[in-house]
Amino acid sequence: MTHALLPEGFRDRLPPFADAAARLEQAILGAAYAHGYERVDPALAEFEAGLAGRLKSARTQDAVRFVDPVSQATLAIRPDMTAQIGRIAATRMGHHPRPVRLAYAGPVLKLRASQLRPERELRQIGCELIGLDTIAAAREIVEVVVEALAAAGVAGVSIDFTLPDLVDILAAGPFPVDADQIDALRDRLDAKDAGGVAAIAPAYLPLIEAAGLFEPAHERLCAFDAGGALTSRLDGLWNIAEGLKGRVALTLDPTERHGFEYQSWLGFSIFADGVLGEIGRGGSYTIVHEDGAEEAAIGFSLYADAIVAAGLGPIDRRRLFVPLGTDPALSAAMRGQGWVAVTALEAGDTPEAQLCTHILVGSEVRPL
Amino acid sequence: MTHALLPEGFRDRLPPFADAAARLEQAILGAAYAHGYERVDPALAEFEAGLAGRLKSARTQDAVRFVDPVSQATLAIRPDMTAQIGRIAATRMGHHPRPVRLAYAGPVLKLRASQLRPERELRQIGCELIGLDTIAAAREIVEVVVEALAAAGVAGVSIDFTLPDLVDILAAGPFPVDADQIDALRDRLDAKDAGGVAAIAPAYLPLIEAAGLFEPAHERLCAFDAGGALTSRLDGLWNIAEGLKGRVALTLDPTERHGFEYQSWLGFSIFADGVLGEIGRGGSYTIVHEDGAEEAAIGFSLYADAIVAAGLGPIDRRRLFVPLGTDPALSAAMRGQGWVAVTALEAGDTPEAQLCTHILVGSEVRPL
Repeated sequence: MTHALLPEGFRDRLPPFADAAARLEQAILGAAYAHGYERVDPALAEFEAGLAGRLKSARTQDAVRFVDPVSQATLAIRPDMTAQIGRIAATRMGHHPRPVRLAYAGPVLKLRASQLRPERELRQIGCELIGLDTIAAAREIVEVVVEALAAAGVAGVSIDFTLPDLVDILAAGPFPVDADQIDALRDRLDAKDAGGVAAIAPAYLPLIEAAGLFEPAHERLCAFDAGGALTSRLDGLWNIAEGLKGRVALTLDPTERHGFEYQSWLGFSIFADGVLGEIGRGGSYTIVHEDGAEEAAIGFSLYADAIVAAGLGPIDRRRLFVPLGTDPALSAAMRGQGWVAVTALEAGDTPEAQLCTHILVGSEVRPL
Repeated sequence: MTHALLPEGFRDRLPPFADAAARLEQAILGAAYAHGYERVDPALAEFEAGLAGRLKSARTQDAVRFVDPVSQATLAIRPDMTAQIGRIAATRMGHHPRPVRLAYAGPVLKLRASQLRPERELRQIGCELIGLDTIAAAREIVEVVVEALAAAGVAGVSIDFTLPDLVDILAAGPFPVDADQIDALRDRLDAKDAGGVAAIAPAYLPLIEAAGLFEPAHERLCAFDAGGALTSRLDGLWNIAEGLKGRVALTLDPTERHGFEYQSWLGFSIFADGVLGEIGRGGSYTIVHEDGAEEAAIGFSLYADAIVAAGLGPIDRRRLFVPLGTDPALSAAMRGQGWVAVTALEAGDTPEAQLCTHILVGSEVRPL
């Protein structure tokens, strides 16, 4: 029967992984909370028109849509929460003094999987700092993500920085490119295709080499930027990296563009030892208000599923079996001491069936 | 512009309520975890056919549906999580020794609001005990819900018991009713319409009076049940109530049926002081396996939104303002002591703008 199967890209998380994922999320949001990031919980579905165009340059996402029988409008299940946070910051929290610090966690749904991500349902956890995208703001955001991952027990974190608007800046300044060639140039740089780049704009070739470990790559990028068009960005990157030195591995890939369609001057991908692919990403971006006004913001999102799937979430499963007929006050006392106490409800029940590691004998806890 | 508005029945939860809701949920699931209820996190969407018919007698729910471009099948966004837990228990956890204890929390989506609930997105939190629906199982489930609500700080809890299959039992035994009249009789009993009940089956009239505070209602129901058709249910109710005596208010409404369409011998609604309408419900039910086999289960669901909206979630919002230029090691130390420490990122920032209750002056915390 097909009843047992889920559609491609969907899955159930079972014990003990669902609890591990919840603990991971609590640790991440707890660290962010200590920095003042308060949680918002946006609606799971909203008017499609309210999500589109909320983040400047964001493409229309591949959202699940349905016609709402009440409003007769098309609603979308959120494919991403960042645009929702932008909407909330621009509307109901529009009167709030800036910067506003917001955190969130919840499921997002994509109609189709992407090449990089076979999942169509993901759990997104993130923080957004709205009203600033300065170096100080960027330093705080990367500090929060590093502390959050440490609190969650994720080891071997590395951050790969990029400069999403690099080509725009250079093309508008020292190295002009025909407007109709800019997209192709970005593509070739993203693919590290030296031949392709040379055919369009050879001046950009050194950018391909300016990737790798942060310090040497930064140095090569500084050498490339003789005219100083990138000075503020390069100084900013250096300043941000300084706050992280010796704590996480840092790399720089200035032309990495995939997935940074709407980011402005700064983008970063987050990796961890033992996890294939990125565990999160972040960067600066621009929120578009109702009146068309634009507002700078910066933030990050983490994908808990990838982290938990790699077994990085702490799993502690000590369970105490409480035999039939035990005084409920005794098992309540064991729970009060922090035990998971599983009560036998019928004669045939056993500690093994209940995955217990310990058993209560009289009032004594014995390991099994 | 309509961008700012959400569709009817949807809403964003803002600070500090979203954090309060998350803490409430953690407290509830923490209490359940201590009883051995481990979390599962079912997919947000699944094949419509996989949800329908999973719980015996459950009606097709008003789910948001969409055609999956990958499988070309109709998928449903879950309108309820209990059927999903049933699916998981019957399939991937089918081999697990019984009883299985599972907990869950997540959003559910309804295409249309109901008369009782204007919300179309709700956060459902619950526990299911699968493989048993005995008195011992029912005592554990009500114990867990009472402890969970106490852990969450919800005061003035009351539980209203019902007997969902009461009319079926009586009609098959001492008080026969024409098959085509049973639904009408249930409706009239549910509406406490003495005239309507008298017109269909006068023998059922005393049931209308057998509602109210638990002990007198139970007594009237026992008097009504001279033939003993309900003895096991009445003894069971008494036994369950005994475990709760003096801790929560108990009522009995044996013919209450609304919302208990798929429950078997036991159902209950949960109320709390200061909250309009029920905050949760539970009862015994039957899971249908892939091969048609049936399995008894019992559980409860709570609706966090109603509880938080009533202000029952604890809200603690002490925030420490860290002035510009403070040594980051100092603010880190304050966070280590449990403070929410909000760092000024630009010269104009103020404790008031950041909703802070305290300020760091040198290394000293001062209230504002």
